[in-house]
Amino acid sequence: MTTDTTQDEKYIRRAVELATANVTTKAGGPFGCVIVKDGTVLAEGENRVTGTSDPTAHAEIVAIRRACGRLGTHQLDGAVLYSSTLPCPMCLAAIYWARPERVVYACTAEDAAAAGFDDALIYDELAKPMAQRQIPMSQLLRDEGLASFELWKRSLERVHY
Amino acid sequence: MTTDTTQDEKYIRRAVELATANVTTKAGGPFGCVIVKDGTVLAEGENRVTGTSDPTAHAEIVAIRRACGRLGTHQLDGAVLYSSTLPCPMCLAAIYWARPERVVYACTAEDAAAAGFDDALIYDELAKPMAQRQIPMSQLLRDEGLASFELWKRSLERVHY
Repeated sequence: MTTDTTQDEKYIRRAVELATANVTTKAGGPFGCVIVKDGTVLAEGENRVTGTSDPTAHAEIVAIRRACGRLGTHQLDGAVLYSSTLPCPMCLAAIYWARPERVVYACTAEDAAAAGFDDALIYDELAKPMAQRQIPMSQLLRDEGLASFELWKRSLERVHY
Repeated sequence: MTTDTTQDEKYIRRAVELATANVTTKAGGPFGCVIVKDGTVLAEGENRVTGTSDPTAHAEIVAIRRACGRLGTHQLDGAVLYSSTLPCPMCLAAIYWARPERVVYACTAEDAAAAGFDDALIYDELAKPMAQRQIPMSQLLRDEGLASFELWKRSLERVHY
């Protein structure tokens, strides 16, 4: 067993511990996340959807916001994100925006679905052409919208991300 | 022109206005969002990624969090979400978790990509099999992770979402 695997096991166990504790304390759903960089835990997160009336408060989002807040940057270069369950599409895309080095997870989207969570449904929906999705999406006034991008491209002081 | 279209144009123009103002004030990227229910604006949101060191602070996420906070629930039944650009995968999945009635947008993912934003890349990545994605993801200790879900399923006081 390599040191990496030992470390990975330690932190994924902590993510699962947070998930279990969240159910015990009735704070939210059974999901936990730990973000580690250079052997230091940058942040932990637990699901807080119902407790805070925030559908975006998944464990990974909570942990990413805390870790970035601590680092004072919107990027997580070189960090490893440990999640008790495969990140849902929202969290997976958030991971792409934050760009940690890699992700380790324990349970699957199917495991979450079996417990009543819609992760698998949303993965399916995102894979469909827009016209076939359950929530209708329509386009309007693109020409007017493009003006914001034109202004952005001309802005010399923009901070890219 | 139906009243709906008039209303849709009014609110998508407001979303674009927020996007443009965000560039002018240098507060963040060129993205704005308005959430409306029963003819009332529940919340507005602007991109705050760089300003708050929060990679999840896209206009739609900011608006969803504000709207849900105002309603005191993690669901947006019957609401319409207006975004200056097609929601990125993170925001689209957040929309599925919040479940508004429909979405209206102005610019496309390609428009965002042309201005330097990775929306299109992330859409491509999510469509790939996990093993082919840029950020490596590995599974570990699923059996231990399942214990959290078992506890959740046995919990009588859980709040489903």
